[in-house]
Amino acid sequence: MGQRIAEPPISWLMHAALSRPELISLAAGFTDNASLPVAETRAALDQVLHSPESGRPALQYGSTAGDTTLRRLTARHVQKLDGVTAHDRFHSPERLLITSGSQQLLYMATEALCDEDDIVLVEDPTYFVFLSILQSRGVRARGVRLERDGLDLDHLAAVLLSLKHNGQLRRVKMLYLVSYFQNPTGVTTGFEKKAAAAKLLKKFEHAAGHPIYLLEDAAYRGLRFAGRDVPSALTTRGAADRVIYTGTFSKPFATGARVGYGILPEPVYTAVLRIKGNHDFGTANLLQQLFVRALTSGSYAQHGDRLRKRYAHKARVMKQAIERHFPADVEWWEPEGGLYFWARLPRHIPTGVKSKVFRAALKNDVLYVPGELCYPDDPARRKPNHEMRISFGNASENGIREGIRRLGEVLQKFL
Amino acid sequence: MGQRIAEPPISWLMHAALSRPELISLAAGFTDNASLPVAETRAALDQVLHSPESGRPALQYGSTAGDTTLRRLTARHVQKLDGVTAHDRFHSPERLLITSGSQQLLYMATEALCDEDDIVLVEDPTYFVFLSILQSRGVRARGVRLERDGLDLDHLAAVLLSLKHNGQLRRVKMLYLVSYFQNPTGVTTGFEKKAAAAKLLKKFEHAAGHPIYLLEDAAYRGLRFAGRDVPSALTTRGAADRVIYTGTFSKPFATGARVGYGILPEPVYTAVLRIKGNHDFGTANLLQQLFVRALTSGSYAQHGDRLRKRYAHKARVMKQAIERHFPADVEWWEPEGGLYFWARLPRHIPTGVKSKVFRAALKNDVLYVPGELCYPDDPARRKPNHEMRISFGNASENGIREGIRRLGEVLQKFL
Repeated sequence: MGQRIAEPPISWLMHAALSRPELISLAAGFTDNASLPVAETRAALDQVLHSPESGRPALQYGSTAGDTTLRRLTARHVQKLDGVTAHDRFHSPERLLITSGSQQLLYMATEALCDEDDIVLVEDPTYFVFLSILQSRGVRARGVRLERDGLDLDHLAAVLLSLKHNGQLRRVKMLYLVSYFQNPTGVTTGFEKKAAAAKLLKKFEHAAGHPIYLLEDAAYRGLRFAGRDVPSALTTRGAADRVIYTGTFSKPFATGARVGYGILPEPVYTAVLRIKGNHDFGTANLLQQLFVRALTSGSYAQHGDRLRKRYAHKARVMKQAIERHFPADVEWWEPEGGLYFWARLPRHIPTGVKSKVFRAALKNDVLYVPGELCYPDDPARRKPNHEMRISFGNASENGIREGIRRLGEVLQKFL
Repeated sequence: MGQRIAEPPISWLMHAALSRPELISLAAGFTDNASLPVAETRAALDQVLHSPESGRPALQYGSTAGDTTLRRLTARHVQKLDGVTAHDRFHSPERLLITSGSQQLLYMATEALCDEDDIVLVEDPTYFVFLSILQSRGVRARGVRLERDGLDLDHLAAVLLSLKHNGQLRRVKMLYLVSYFQNPTGVTTGFEKKAAAAKLLKKFEHAAGHPIYLLEDAAYRGLRFAGRDVPSALTTRGAADRVIYTGTFSKPFATGARVGYGILPEPVYTAVLRIKGNHDFGTANLLQQLFVRALTSGSYAQHGDRLRKRYAHKARVMKQAIERHFPADVEWWEPEGGLYFWARLPRHIPTGVKSKVFRAALKNDVLYVPGELCYPDDPARRKPNHEMRISFGNASENGIREGIRRLGEVLQKFL
C-alpha cells in the first residue's frame, strides 16, 4: 500500500453517533442546517441555467485553475477583506486557484511541498484532518504552543532553533496556521503575531536551505460574528511571498456546494495547479458558476450576514448554557467566530475516546470532540488529553441547551 | 518539492490553441457543447431545491463515501449494465464510493496502491493524464501492446514473465485498462480478453507476493453508439475480487457537474475512502443530488440516448471526411463509442509537437493530440511517434468537416 493510512478518529465518532438516535452531537463540524440558503441557491442556479447560452458553459469542462470570472471575483473578495488595491501582486487572480473546498488545497499544498519524513509545524492543538493528511503521507508534525491570542512566538522560535541544532531544519517545509477562529480552539491569531511568525520563518530559510512557507488556513474567516476582521498574512511586508492562503465559499454559504480557493506564490502555484490537473482537472464548473452568480447578485453577502447573526446567537446560547451547567474549574474559551468553543478540564481528568468522561457523555447522549485527537504525535511533549471541542454549528438552539446540560451533568460527576 | 512534476503536455496544446482564434481543435476531450442538458439540469435542481426540506440535505456536508441513495442507484446502474442481480457481491453499494469524476478515483487508487518506484502496467498507448499521475508520484509505467480488439494478451504474459525474471514483479501493483472506446485509440477490449487478463494477473500474484489489481476505467462506457455493451471485469469469475472499476455520470450528461464513482474490493476500498476523507471529505452533495434526481426521473437515461445519437452522427461525419481527405496510406480506426478516432501515418513520418506535420497542421489552423504523448517512457521499446488522436467530441459538424479537410491537406503534403 502506498499510504500509511490509519482509521481517522472522526469516523469512530460518527459510528458512535449513529448508534444512538437520541444523541446530541456537539462534535460535528456541520454547519447550521436551518439557515442553509435553499431559495438563494435555486435562484442563482435558475439564472445560470435560464438559457442554453448561459447554461452550457456551466455544464462543460472548465480550466484546471478555475473560471476566470470567479478567480477575479475571489481575488477582489480577499483584496477587500485585506484592505488592499486590485494592484497588490500578492492578491492577484493569477495566483489564485479554485478548489473543491479549502480542504483540497491543504492536501495539494502538502503534496507539492512535502516529501516523506519532512516536518510541518502546526499549532498545538490543530485541525485533526490536517494531521491525518500529514500522517497518511509520512510527514511529521511538530507542535507550536497555542495561547489564548494565537501562536506562541517564543515557542515557535524555540522549536525552530532546536530543529536547527539537531540538523532537522532542512526537513521543515511549512508552518500550518488556522488563523481565524481556529479549529479546534476558536482562537484567532492577531496580525502582528502572524506577521512576526512569517518573518521568523524567513529568517530560518538560509539555515534550512529552502523556503519555509506559511500555510494560512482561513476557512472560518467568513464566520466572524464579533470583533474586527484581521488582515491575512498576505499583507505581511517582506514575507508575503512565502504565504499560501486558503479560503472557502462553502462554509459561509452552503457546505454541500464545495468551492474553495488558494492563493499561492510561485513555484508552489504551478506545482499545485499540475497536481490539481491530476486530481480532477478542475472543480465542477456548475458549482463555480453558482458562486459567480451569488457573489455578483449580492446573495452571497446577504446570506453571510444572516448566517453570522445566527451563529452569534447560537454562540450566546452555548455560552449561557456553559455558564449555567459547567463546573467552575472547567476553563473554557469563547470564540469571536467560527463554530467552536474549547473547554479545558483540570489536567488529571482525561477526555479521550477511552476515558470515563467520554463514555459517560456518550451514555448521557451527548458527543464532543476529545481534544487529544487534535494534537500530533510529538516526542517533545506529552499529548494533552483533558480538553474538548464543543461545536454550536449544527445543533439546534434547544439541542445546544440540552447538550450542554447533559455534558455539564457528566462533568459535575467527575469534578 | 514533494512531487516530480513535469509540465503536462495538454497545457502546451491549450496554449497553442488559444493563440489562434481560427483554429479548429480536434484535440480537446471536451464534450459536445450544443447538446449539454441545460433544461434538464435546471429541472432536476429545481426539484432538489423546491423546498427547504428537500434542499437542505443537498446544501449540507454529506458522508465521505457519498449519498446513500446515489450509491444504491449507481450500483443498480452498473448491475443492469453488467446483467447481474442486486445480490451480486462485486456490485454492492457497500463497495461503491462517489468521487469528483472518475479522474479522482484514478488518482486515489494510485495513491492507495503504489509506492515510489512501483510499476503499473498500462495499455501502450494509454490515457495521458494517467501517465501524468504515475510520473508525478514516481511510479513507473510499463506498456502492454494494444491491438485493434484490445489488450495483447501474449504481450501481457511476456511482460509479466520478464518482470518476474528480472526480479521486478514485486513492484507491479496493477494493470490500468481503459476498457471502453479507449482514450486515445477508441479501442474496446472484449470481455474474454479482459477476463483472461484479470486471471493472468492473479496467476502472477504468488510470485509478486501481493495482489495485482485490474483498474478498469469505464469512463466512456456510457457513450456507446454502435455495437453491443461488454460486461465489466467485475463479472469475471475467479478474479472479480481484484477488480477496481470506475465510471462517471459526467461524460454522458454534463462534464461541468463532475460526479464519478469507483467500485473497489477491500482493503483498497477502505484505503481509498480514507484518502478521499483527506482530499475533500466527500463530493459536493448538491451535484450528487442532481444525479439522484436525473437518474430517478429518467432524464439521465433520455439525455444519454440523445447524446449517443448525436455522437454517432458526428462520428459518421468524421469518418466520411477522413475517407474523403486522408491519403490512402494513413491507417485509421473507427470507434463504436467515445470521442476519438485514431490515425497512424507511415512509421517514418513523426506527428509529435515538434514535428513538421504538427507545425504544418497548427499553421493550417487544426489541432490534434500527437500519439507520442500517450506512450509512457518504457525502456523495452522505442516510443511510437507517428500517430494522432482525433476527437469529434467538441467540434461542430462543420468544424469536423473543415478540420479534417485541413488535416488531410497537411497529410497529403507529407505523404
